Amino acid sequence: MSVTAAYGFTAAGVAAGLKSPAEDGTAKRDVALVVNTGPLKHAAAVLTTNRVSAAPVLWSRQVISDGRADAVVLNSGGANACTGAPGFADTHTTAEQVAEKLSSAGQDVSATDVLVCSTGLIGVRLDMPALLSGVESAVNTLGEDDDAGAAASEAILTTDTVTKTATASGSGFTIGGMAKGAGMLAPGMATMLSVITTDAVISAEALDAALREAVRVSFNRADSDGCMSTNDTVIAMASGAHPDADPAGVNLTEFQTALAEVCQTLAAALIADAEGAHHEIAIRTINAATEDEAETAGRAVARSNLFKTAIFGRDPNWGRILSAVGTTDVAFDPMTIDVAVNGVWICRAGGIGEDRSLVDLSDRLVEVVIDLKAGEAEATILTNDLTHDYVHENSAYSS
Amino acid sequence: MSVTAAYGFTAAGVAAGLKSPAEDGTAKRDVALVVNTGPLKHAAAVLTTNRVSAAPVLWSRQVISDGRADAVVLNSGGANACTGAPGFADTHTTAEQVAEKLSSAGQDVSATDVLVCSTGLIGVRLDMPALLSGVESAVNTLGEDDDAGAAASEAILTTDTVTKTATASGSGFTIGGMAKGAGMLAPGMATMLSVITTDAVISAEALDAALREAVRVSFNRADSDGCMSTNDTVIAMASGAHPDADPAGVNLTEFQTALAEVCQTLAAALIADAEGAHHEIAIRTINAATEDEAETAGRAVARSNLFKTAIFGRDPNWGRILSAVGTTDVAFDPMTIDVAVNGVWICRAGGIGEDRSLVDLSDRLVEVVIDLKAGEAEATILTNDLTHDYVHENSAYSS
Repeated sequence: MSVTAAYGFTAAGVAAGLKSPAEDGTAKRDVALVVNTGPLKHAAAVLTTNRVSAAPVLWSRQVISDGRADAVVLNSGGANACTGAPGFADTHTTAEQVAEKLSSAGQDVSATDVLVCSTGLIGVRLDMPALLSGVESAVNTLGEDDDAGAAASEAILTTDTVTKTATASGSGFTIGGMAKGAGMLAPGMATMLSVITTDAVISAEALDAALREAVRVSFNRADSDGCMSTNDTVIAMASGAHPDADPAGVNLTEFQTALAEVCQTLAAALIADAEGAHHEIAIRTINAATEDEAETAGRAVARSNLFKTAIFGRDPNWGRILSAVGTTDVAFDPMTIDVAVNGVWICRAGGIGEDRSLVDLSDRLVEVVIDLKAGEAEATILTNDLTHDYVHENSAYSS
Repeated sequence: MSVTAAYGFTAAGVAAGLKSPAEDGTAKRDVALVVNTGPLKHAAAVLTTNRVSAAPVLWSRQVISDGRADAVVLNSGGANACTGAPGFADTHTTAEQVAEKLSSAGQDVSATDVLVCSTGLIGVRLDMPALLSGVESAVNTLGEDDDAGAAASEAILTTDTVTKTATASGSGFTIGGMAKGAGMLAPGMATMLSVITTDAVISAEALDAALREAVRVSFNRADSDGCMSTNDTVIAMASGAHPDADPAGVNLTEFQTALAEVCQTLAAALIADAEGAHHEIAIRTINAATEDEAETAGRAVARSNLFKTAIFGRDPNWGRILSAVGTTDVAFDPMTIDVAVNGVWICRAGGIGEDRSLVDLSDRLVEVVIDLKAGEAEATILTNDLTHDYVHENSAYSS
């Protein structure tokens, strides 16, 4: 199940030769296409806030501005970032190829309604003949079954070891999504991409609002190594094709909850597949003055290399947690803060708490709880440990 | 030459048993004392801005508030951070021991004029009998020669491999300084400590202003791994004892330049001795709108684990540099920015520049130049690469 779980979508994933073949010589899928067959063509996107934005991000920002998208084409094997005007022209050409081939196949699509995503190395041009040929193959193999969705979710992977998909459903709607990357970033800077489809009847404005809220509490709280990509993109497309859909529109509260659940499942899957990581760490900050402050405190800890290496070494080093929180301006008193690691409150009132030898860090999953005692808000940041494999992965391969 | 280079200071460094002995069984120096014998007792200090401040930082903040300090006592073998009220009492007791023993030796000193610094593990109490006995030994071995200064600079080391000292002089003044730590942080979180002495005739207010400016352009631009300590302290003390001192006061411009030079030499020495580092990296941001923005851009790059692992892998990965700058809000145009690594402009106008294979990263020293083309200000941030040795150092030892 993936982007084809919802009614009104077709998908494909093909091998175009943008990625190197597998060790056994098999070509890897590297071009994905997701098409909204309607009746609605509503869409929303959340794009990287990195000011060095890749060409496909610049393009997609324009496409999405009217709340409509008919299709999204995604390629792995190259990020098309820092490639200047020629790179932007490549993205434009790709969208035109999608529109032309879909139109030839009977679906009238304008290039300006085609979103584009790319992932791979920064600063290299894409192999355009290969990509354009891949787009044609993708159009020719579009399907609406599980296999088609699975092929698309595979074609967007870079150094990911598994595909990441999620679905949810409610009264008169289904949501299906796929994602790739993140976690420990791949050589040359990998990208977090996600495409989510739904057959709900929902306006572009409501879809945009729901997507932003869902991303805020999911992907934006997954912080594997603090490095923001030039290509990060999350796209949601609504077809309104569910047979039981309420023509007046989906229940927005129910839809919001289901969409956040799909995004959180995908975000957790990214962290779980982070390259080089030995631990997935959930940093839950409780009793914060505001949700933003809870997020700020957790993110400071998630970005501390000393904390991350300590977890790799199975060392419940609460001093490194406190010193990271201490660099922020969130409301807390250093003399009352408590910290637990995997259920053991090893820091009490800013000092030595329960016996640290009681903490078991042998599992992959680690939960840190930081009690700020400053309010009632909370937030959880997901991150990874900093390991030899991370250093190896990001240094040993030239990009 | 060290803190005893300037007239009017005595120093000592003794082994009190706070640190484990060397492999050959030799006791390591771990208590240092620097005494200002006057006639002036002016002092200034820059303390960590981490809100989780160690007990000695809380104490020294009070001591320095009146611009006077007679002595500073420093111990390695324990940071006395996150130790609550008992830890603060330990610091108080240490200052009282210094005052009492100095007074017994004929120098009338109040405990409230004794600065205290500690460095080592967070969250453990100090061995007070050993420390107090060490203070007594230090008072008994105070000297004003080079050996005494060298002993003090050795006693503050933790996992440093060499002592760090610097001197400068000008019309009617000498400046001497010592420092420890920083760079890749040691197990349990090391501390950056520095004590600088001068025989200049200078008011406490002018000394404070000069020290803050010197720290701003030196220690505050050394960012080895982005982790701020709970104990960071830089202290300056002026005795006014130089035989050629102008009683009306030192030339402040000349003094400021010399003090900044001493601080920059010490900061560079910290980065050069950073544990686990294979490269020292100077990130020079030029043509920024303001000096602050130059610093912000450089620091964003210095804190990118992807950039730091790339340099370890001798990969001049300019995409990772651009994506780090892109996360900031400093003035620059992604379509005009240039980046050079070791003199080769591999990124021109935000895209591919000269051949990256021309970049030689075999030397320990690396210079990155980022040309923002937004103004005329510049700043240099010093940092290190992220290596297997860093991960090992900070994960393999439980703290």
